Amino acid sequence: MKAIVIQGSFGLGSLAEVTLPDPRPGPAEVVLKMRAASLNYRDLMTVRGQYNPRQPLPLVPLSDGVGEVIEVGPAVTRVKRGDRVCPIFTQAWQDGELDAEKLKTTLGGPLPGVLSELFVASESGLVKVPDHLSDEEAATLPCAGVTAYNALFSSGSVRPGDTVLVQGTGGVSIFALQLARLAGARVIVTSSSDTKLERAKALGAWATINYKTTPDWDKKALELTGGAGVDHVVEVGGAGTLARSMRATRIGGTVSVIGVLAGAAQEMNVLPILMKHLRLQGIMVGSRVMFEAMTRAIDASELRPVIDERTFSFGEAREALAYMESGGHFGKIVLRF
Amino acid sequence: MKAIVIQGSFGLGSLAEVTLPDPRPGPAEVVLKMRAASLNYRDLMTVRGQYNPRQPLPLVPLSDGVGEVIEVGPAVTRVKRGDRVCPIFTQAWQDGELDAEKLKTTLGGPLPGVLSELFVASESGLVKVPDHLSDEEAATLPCAGVTAYNALFSSGSVRPGDTVLVQGTGGVSIFALQLARLAGARVIVTSSSDTKLERAKALGAWATINYKTTPDWDKKALELTGGAGVDHVVEVGGAGTLARSMRATRIGGTVSVIGVLAGAAQEMNVLPILMKHLRLQGIMVGSRVMFEAMTRAIDASELRPVIDERTFSFGEAREALAYMESGGHFGKIVLRF
Amino acid sequence: MKAIVIQGSFGLGSLAEVTLPDPRPGPAEVVLKMRAASLNYRDLMTVRGQYNPRQPLPLVPLSDGVGEVIEVGPAVTRVKRGDRVCPIFTQAWQDGELDAEKLKTTLGGPLPGVLSELFVASESGLVKVPDHLSDEEAATLPCAGVTAYNALFSSGSVRPGDTVLVQGTGGVSIFALQLARLAGARVIVTSSSDTKLERAKALGAWATINYKTTPDWDKKALELTGGAGVDHVVEVGGAGTLARSMRATRIGGTVSVIGVLAGAAQEMNVLPILMKHLRLQGIMVGSRVMFEAMTRAIDASELRPVIDERTFSFGEAREALAYMESGGHFGKIVLRF
Amino acid sequence: MKAIVIQGSFGLGSLAEVTLPDPRPGPAEVVLKMRAASLNYRDLMTVRGQYNPRQPLPLVPLSDGVGEVIEVGPAVTRVKRGDRVCPIFTQAWQDGELDAEKLKTTLGGPLPGVLSELFVASESGLVKVPDHLSDEEAATLPCAGVTAYNALFSSGSVRPGDTVLVQGTGGVSIFALQLARLAGARVIVTSSSDTKLERAKALGAWATINYKTTPDWDKKALELTGGAGVDHVVEVGGAGTLARSMRATRIGGTVSVIGVLAGAAQEMNVLPILMKHLRLQGIMVGSRVMFEAMTRAIDASELRPVIDERTFSFGEAREALAYMESGGHFGKIVLRF
Repeated sequence: MKAIVIQGSFGLGSLAEVTLPDPRPGPAEVVLKMRAASLNYRDLMTVRGQYNPRQPLPLVPLSDGVGEVIEVGPAVTRVKRGDRVCPIFTQAWQDGELDAEKLKTTLGGPLPGVLSELFVASESGLVKVPDHLSDEEAATLPCAGVTAYNALFSSGSVRPGDTVLVQGTGGVSIFALQLARLAGARVIVTSSSDTKLERAKALGAWATINYKTTPDWDKKALELTGGAGVDHVVEVGGAGTLARSMRATRIGGTVSVIGVLAGAAQEMNVLPILMKHLRLQGIMVGSRVMFEAMTRAIDASELRPVIDERTFSFGEAREALAYMESGGHFGKIVLRF
Repeated sequence: MKAIVIQGSFGLGSLAEVTLPDPRPGPAEVVLKMRAASLNYRDLMTVRGQYNPRQPLPLVPLSDGVGEVIEVGPAVTRVKRGDRVCPIFTQAWQDGELDAEKLKTTLGGPLPGVLSELFVASESGLVKVPDHLSDEEAATLPCAGVTAYNALFSSGSVRPGDTVLVQGTGGVSIFALQLARLAGARVIVTSSSDTKLERAKALGAWATINYKTTPDWDKKALELTGGAGVDHVVEVGGAGTLARSMRATRIGGTVSVIGVLAGAAQEMNVLPILMKHLRLQGIMVGSRVMFEAMTRAIDASELRPVIDERTFSFGEAREALAYMESGGHFGKIVLRF
Repeated sequence: MKAIVIQGSFGLGSLAEVTLPDPRPGPAEVVLKMRAASLNYRDLMTVRGQYNPRQPLPLVPLSDGVGEVIEVGPAVTRVKRGDRVCPIFTQAWQDGELDAEKLKTTLGGPLPGVLSELFVASESGLVKVPDHLSDEEAATLPCAGVTAYNALFSSGSVRPGDTVLVQGTGGVSIFALQLARLAGARVIVTSSSDTKLERAKALGAWATINYKTTPDWDKKALELTGGAGVDHVVEVGGAGTLARSMRATRIGGTVSVIGVLAGAAQEMNVLPILMKHLRLQGIMVGSRVMFEAMTRAIDASELRPVIDERTFSFGEAREALAYMESGGHFGKIVLRF
Repeated sequence: MKAIVIQGSFGLGSLAEVTLPDPRPGPAEVVLKMRAASLNYRDLMTVRGQYNPRQPLPLVPLSDGVGEVIEVGPAVTRVKRGDRVCPIFTQAWQDGELDAEKLKTTLGGPLPGVLSELFVASESGLVKVPDHLSDEEAATLPCAGVTAYNALFSSGSVRPGDTVLVQGTGGVSIFALQLARLAGARVIVTSSSDTKLERAKALGAWATINYKTTPDWDKKALELTGGAGVDHVVEVGGAGTLARSMRATRIGGTVSVIGVLAGAAQEMNVLPILMKHLRLQGIMVGSRVMFEAMTRAIDASELRPVIDERTFSFGEAREALAYMESGGHFGKIVLRF
């Protein structure tokens, strides 16, 4: 089978197409013929060597994709030939809480990713995808979708009438917008681009804030909520935005820390955590059971993930990652195999 | 002020219009000019003497209504003259858990109800109602709305993609249908009337079951959920329907016991509670904080409570209760003052 | 290897020692040399044909035991040769919620039980036991211990200062007494025997009620709690005692339904569930993760399970079950292999 | 009545004894004859003008004390003359979640504190104290006790067998040690003083770490927990210690942020929140219902708060605060009136 690997050293230039032996399924494993994959910012960091500099190479990158089951081991009962499934991000996290052992089983590093024609996985690490989704749409679910779902409904408990603020229009944020809307919440979206905010409005955002023209977006969020603050912030900026996120949150509210795009470390005042009785919860994607719960929600609502207008082929992984680097996309960047 | 009271003995025939002294607010109290009231089955039972036969008479019946604040005590800060508010069902249940002391403060027995021109209440026992609701719609919220909200979102935790079964098309059930839909759930509605089921469909029911023509509605519910069972049943029938409700519920699912319309006591097998790891939760309306959370959900979604096509005037309480007795209504029966 | 099986027909008289082929471990399996087993009431019902009359025979009975790992499959990583482990009751319930598939994997019916010299199990269905426990003590954990733990701390959330009522002095009840005490709760124990109540006192019961001499034990429980009722009842009687349990529970309290010793079906009034805002939760043992959490609690406290003074040998299964039938025991009945 | 006030300007030197008019109870209020008060670090910051520099003066400082009810308003039902009660820290926080309105009602700033012979409060802002406590012991409960209780059992859910790390031997930390022990948890205590660690051991600490001699106390905590990390850290240091606290916590664990003794603001890396799926929860004391739940736990266990060996009289507030400044105490510093 063909696969794309990072080899030699890190960097977009190190991506190369290679031929690897076709995988064979173990007793409880299946082989997927991959149909599409999607990019997360983590993939870009991995290729650049920023995510885990000690990651051994070569590595097949990319954690998120969808494929068709073409071969099943003799002990397999959960899926069958012909099923369209996504491998889950943390292969060993079926249910319950994350732990150190499970954390070692994430795809696209340290385990091989999905940027290959075939992919072998334990049946326990797969989730069937809703029928109404195209392959491109289904490929976006494993990280971005599950992270948003976990933040709002597993680690969090967003209810109808809550106000949720999502930062930017990246993959997790757009999923959080869609899923929070689905649950009857009001969603405030921030972005530096009025064009992107228009599109967020079209997806159901209740209010939008351009943080370029309104740098004190936390004050605006307070104003929009009658001074009280929002119930839940989906925080993707990290140390660089956390202080504002805490100010924008109501007393007793929740901040889901799901990314550090604006920097991991920075001078920060922790007093608001205490004085506002806040809850900060780190979200590291989620379990298979959360993924399955999300697919039920997507099924029931016929929600469709948002795909960027530009899509790429299997061989264009480098171009796709460069496009992500440019920041011009809206919605998920997808590779069609 | 004029009021309607149950006097002398119980029974619809004992309802009489009387003149009572106009109430004056205490320091932390307000006086409401009532605008509309709505009926619950409990009111019918109260008038008949079935709810609490030891209830002293005379009693102003009806717990649910909406009024305008026309006078405020000097210590009042939460509401102001002109606000449109509902008194909460359990006046002393502001937040947290119910207890025996709070339970003594329910309106329409033992405390005087809202079927009077004026109503005096502590400011802590009032909730402002959403602007988009008519008086008739707002009057339906205190029991039926809050009970459904509590079952699904406070005692329960319905999430997008869950399947909820609601029994019949009474007040709580219709609210449960609307609120569960709002939260992204699939709702199955049962009724003995195809006409009512049609209306439930129009309100967003995902599936309907006529329990007259399909007496084994629990089997149908299992079938609709691929054999698994529903996540949550809103049980209004009591002992008469609980066994089927438990059979219709998935392993690990929840049954909210909110009424006993089909009988309080009956031979019942408790084994399924254990073998299916079920949770049965009794719902006794809810707190002011739950009511406020519900109004935020109604505000955000512009949900409109369902009112029966026939409405009544202040003086027609007896006719309204007789209409409830007949069972021909769909949605809440409202009196317009 | 030798094993005891129910063969031919149900009944204590049908237990027979047979020789079965020694099991070999699959890739992710281990073989245990069993050292001790303990009895649950379910085992007695199973042997009598009352638990599941359609259970195919022959069947090795008994779900609870402890053994030493003597052989491991090549893929095993969680345990090693020499470890002392208990097989979990529901072999496929690792974490999260129970479901129909997992429910088919309980030991001692439908799956073969532990009353055999050797026992083979997936490594995912095993829990290491605390060092300070004897084999006899360790053998009592899988059903009785985990059921009590789940009721109080996984499905329930007993906190210091709560009052817990446990019915009788059977296996689950004694564990519930010990574990609730460990968590700082006050425990009320009921029994028909003053001698057993004395022993419960010695184990830390805060109060005891002889339900023979005080048939209105629910009133006594109310009295002991200043009229409020207890926070949590561990209900083992089923339909026959549930009404009193609900009366003994505080408004907003919890009843864990873990057994039906006093009858599964009976006329019952469900109104108190609703009027007292109660929660009834069925407890069907628990997951491996709950078992592991319990072993940490037992480790930290050096808690020792209570073993009846009379123990039995491998060959005395029939005598042990007959002893259980007699009801004269206090604490768990154990077979030493 | 006599009272001590901060007057003129902030600073220990500004404390002065004054005579104020005796308070009279409103309809739902009571007057307490204060018997003892205790110090929190917040009181020292308040007197120095560091807690809220805009606090108007004069102010009666100190939030925590116990008194005897000597006069009750006509509408009072919850307490009676002769009851020994503590005013709660946040007078308006009865139950449920904190909000901005409630936050304005904390004692010892902005509301007058308890350092006066008489104290008037609404009956809803009082909690009866356990009989077995001396006045000195009871006076320590409102902030330190409730904060620890909230962290562990209301916002958190510590269970038997959990490992809890408490930083230092200040008031909250010692309460957290005692309460976590009561719930069957293992407690690790850090301190710079071996003498204090000895005393922590005597109170039931499972392990102790001297962070002077073991500056990498987080590594030691990992080692003590077999590499996994602790379940819950009670974090009192703030930005200065939070990074180590997060390293010491297991994946999926909880850090309760209850103080900022080692600095509020500092360069901090938030990545571990995300990568370890952590939960940080700010704890701002707690509600009356939490206080009452704590008194039940203290009652049931006969727990006794730890008082420093040196106690002070009403007139020695300045000396008591200076003693706190010196840091030589162990347990709560109490003033006996």
